[in-house]
Amino acid sequence: MKAYKEMTKEELEKEVVALKAQYKKYQEMDLHLNMARGKPCKEQLDLSMGMMDVLNSNEDLTCEDGTDCRNYGVLTGIEEAKVLIGDMMENNPDNIIIFGNSSLNVMYDTIARAYTHGIMGNTPWCKLDKVKWLCPVPGYDRHFGITEHFGMEMIPIPMNENGPDMDLVEKYVSEDPAVKGIWCVPKYSNPTGISYSDEVVCKFARLKPAAADFRIFWDNAYGIHHLYEDADRQDYLVEILAECKKAGNPDMVYKFASTSKITFPGSGIAAIATSLNNLEDITKTMTHQTIGHDKVNQLRHVRFFGDIHGMTEHMKKHAEIIRPKFEAVEEIFDTELSGLGIAKWTIPNGGYFISFDALDGCAKKIVEKAKKAGVLMTDAGATWPYHNDPKDSNIRVAPTYPPLEDLKTAATLFALCVKLVSAKKILEEMQ
Amino acid sequence: MKAYKEMTKEELEKEVVALKAQYKKYQEMDLHLNMARGKPCKEQLDLSMGMMDVLNSNEDLTCEDGTDCRNYGVLTGIEEAKVLIGDMMENNPDNIIIFGNSSLNVMYDTIARAYTHGIMGNTPWCKLDKVKWLCPVPGYDRHFGITEHFGMEMIPIPMNENGPDMDLVEKYVSEDPAVKGIWCVPKYSNPTGISYSDEVVCKFARLKPAAADFRIFWDNAYGIHHLYEDADRQDYLVEILAECKKAGNPDMVYKFASTSKITFPGSGIAAIATSLNNLEDITKTMTHQTIGHDKVNQLRHVRFFGDIHGMTEHMKKHAEIIRPKFEAVEEIFDTELSGLGIAKWTIPNGGYFISFDALDGCAKKIVEKAKKAGVLMTDAGATWPYHNDPKDSNIRVAPTYPPLEDLKTAATLFALCVKLVSAKKILEEMQ
Repeated sequence: MKAYKEMTKEELEKEVVALKAQYKKYQEMDLHLNMARGKPCKEQLDLSMGMMDVLNSNEDLTCEDGTDCRNYGVLTGIEEAKVLIGDMMENNPDNIIIFGNSSLNVMYDTIARAYTHGIMGNTPWCKLDKVKWLCPVPGYDRHFGITEHFGMEMIPIPMNENGPDMDLVEKYVSEDPAVKGIWCVPKYSNPTGISYSDEVVCKFARLKPAAADFRIFWDNAYGIHHLYEDADRQDYLVEILAECKKAGNPDMVYKFASTSKITFPGSGIAAIATSLNNLEDITKTMTHQTIGHDKVNQLRHVRFFGDIHGMTEHMKKHAEIIRPKFEAVEEIFDTELSGLGIAKWTIPNGGYFISFDALDGCAKKIVEKAKKAGVLMTDAGATWPYHNDPKDSNIRVAPTYPPLEDLKTAATLFALCVKLVSAKKILEEMQ
Repeated sequence: MKAYKEMTKEELEKEVVALKAQYKKYQEMDLHLNMARGKPCKEQLDLSMGMMDVLNSNEDLTCEDGTDCRNYGVLTGIEEAKVLIGDMMENNPDNIIIFGNSSLNVMYDTIARAYTHGIMGNTPWCKLDKVKWLCPVPGYDRHFGITEHFGMEMIPIPMNENGPDMDLVEKYVSEDPAVKGIWCVPKYSNPTGISYSDEVVCKFARLKPAAADFRIFWDNAYGIHHLYEDADRQDYLVEILAECKKAGNPDMVYKFASTSKITFPGSGIAAIATSLNNLEDITKTMTHQTIGHDKVNQLRHVRFFGDIHGMTEHMKKHAEIIRPKFEAVEEIFDTELSGLGIAKWTIPNGGYFISFDALDGCAKKIVEKAKKAGVLMTDAGATWPYHNDPKDSNIRVAPTYPPLEDLKTAATLFALCVKLVSAKKILEEMQ
């Protein structure tokens, strides 16, 4: 089929009639499908059920150093969990704090702490007139939700296939002391699926911030979440803490990770990796906030995986379940949309998302149309600060949760909505 | 033996010589005993090991409403956990949010939220010149640690056998709009062990705060933690949410509780109970902070206890283990110290502490002397804001953690230190 923009008005009108008829059939199917959130599916959760068996009443819940995990204490996490998560994050266990079940909560708390008490002796952000934050777009809605909640001025930074536009990042960070942070999902990015190039990571490490309390919020949520086993289809990310240290910026980054998409999203363990100076600063507040996080769950994770090799083997099983889902969506998009000149989408090597770009001004209408036929997508605009995608073109596609057959139906319907909305839009422009 | 103050100088000097000889013997024993923290002992933790078995790989981790506890979602906690904890807290499940493993963390977050975003539309506390906080004394050091960390001016309020001095509370709360909160451990109080009388609770409910965002922080940490089964040795506390509602102050109280001293201190579940207005206010921030707390652990608690009756039966087993410890300490204090006119202590019906009052100016020296002989007590002063006990008399005694025989040794040594320091002090005053 030829590109929509190359069609005559008559050809396009005929296409719209045909698409409307197809859409009507879907509406009659009374679908209830969800491609909105990056949630693991049931089969993925089942992979970790063995974790429910490793700690039972016959087991000793004592750490290697003699700590009884059931009792109070151990503010920053048990040592064996730091080793496991250290290997997962590619950081020294001494640079790690293990938290509760949510890395989002750790990020929120990190900003809240800077807001109430300041970072390493700097003025608390609540005492400043203005705090600005860099937001690579498209990005993760819950990141933007936190910085919006704290009233920060969010500045969109365009993403390309290598990461954020570093010229722009360098300019803002070096010139404006009100710029205090940037959100990054550096590997298998949410939602574009790309990983930051070596050059981009090195440029991050070598930033010269105007603000002493500027921090990179490095949310490495998908660090070991490959879709493929072949080395040439696995992305590699330069380790940012080491680079920052080399560049003389040892304290410039907070790195976050969790097991949410490794074991159970609601019941995993989250962690921060950062410099010893930052750790000391964090624990000054943490010591008032809690006596310690859930050590039994930390031990449960350690006993289940044994070591990082156990964890990477476990990740292969996740990949086996979700790879066919990504490929199905990609194949349907290719079949239904290639050559029409109305859409672009990413083909990631890992992570949880495909980023979809429709014609300008079409994203909201596409998501609405899909919803009316029973397929829920992430809200259009969600990938931008303030839910405001100025081009109204980006849509995040989350293929992991629905069963494969449902997913195929949902992706086909979605592609149909893309065609229908795009064809109508082009027709309008012809008027 | 007669009271020290009634002894002649010679008698007292002789007593000091004898006490010093005894003390030396203890020093030679190379003791390492700990009566510092309110930690359950190993036997208490063993009571909950069955909780490690109720969720295994053969079990369905699905809630009654179909929620898969392993996955993301359910911000405020699963319904069956709200029912169980609602029964524990004597509140409607609809008034409850279930959090992670630490009620201290919930209290910290509640203050942090008021500080950063304000309570129900009121000015965020970080924007105020001064925030004042009422601190019943002696009280819980970790409470005071939070309010000190946020720079609040802490005002000590004397405790008596019925609770805080309500005349003083009423005066501060009604006259000063900078007074934003008060810490309360209303039942089996930390450390005095007393429970607030009906009249005190009703006076709390009927406060007329000058500040619209004044809140009572009602930390009912020991709500079902009786030491005795006899009804006449169990304290009863009037339910504060209901009283506040009746008094036209429905939003004035945040009530906190956890299972930390019911199951595992590090791996329990914590909760808040409050009005629907407050809940709505809290969830506005929570929705940015986390996708939800650990539902698997919530389900684990529900499946282990079944219902509140299961939980109260479980608490009887705790009492059987720790009651002899409290009684041993009380008996030793009685034998060693009664009639000497140098000490008073509480005899609680529940909770985790005995509050000990030495002669003025003796607490620090007693704790130091005990430490030098290998017995660690809570730091003298810890029960006061800023660690500043103006009389230097109060010491918190925590009998639960050490094995009974160790505890007896520790209590006897402690009593010896009390006698030695007191005798010397009285002698000095005779000079």
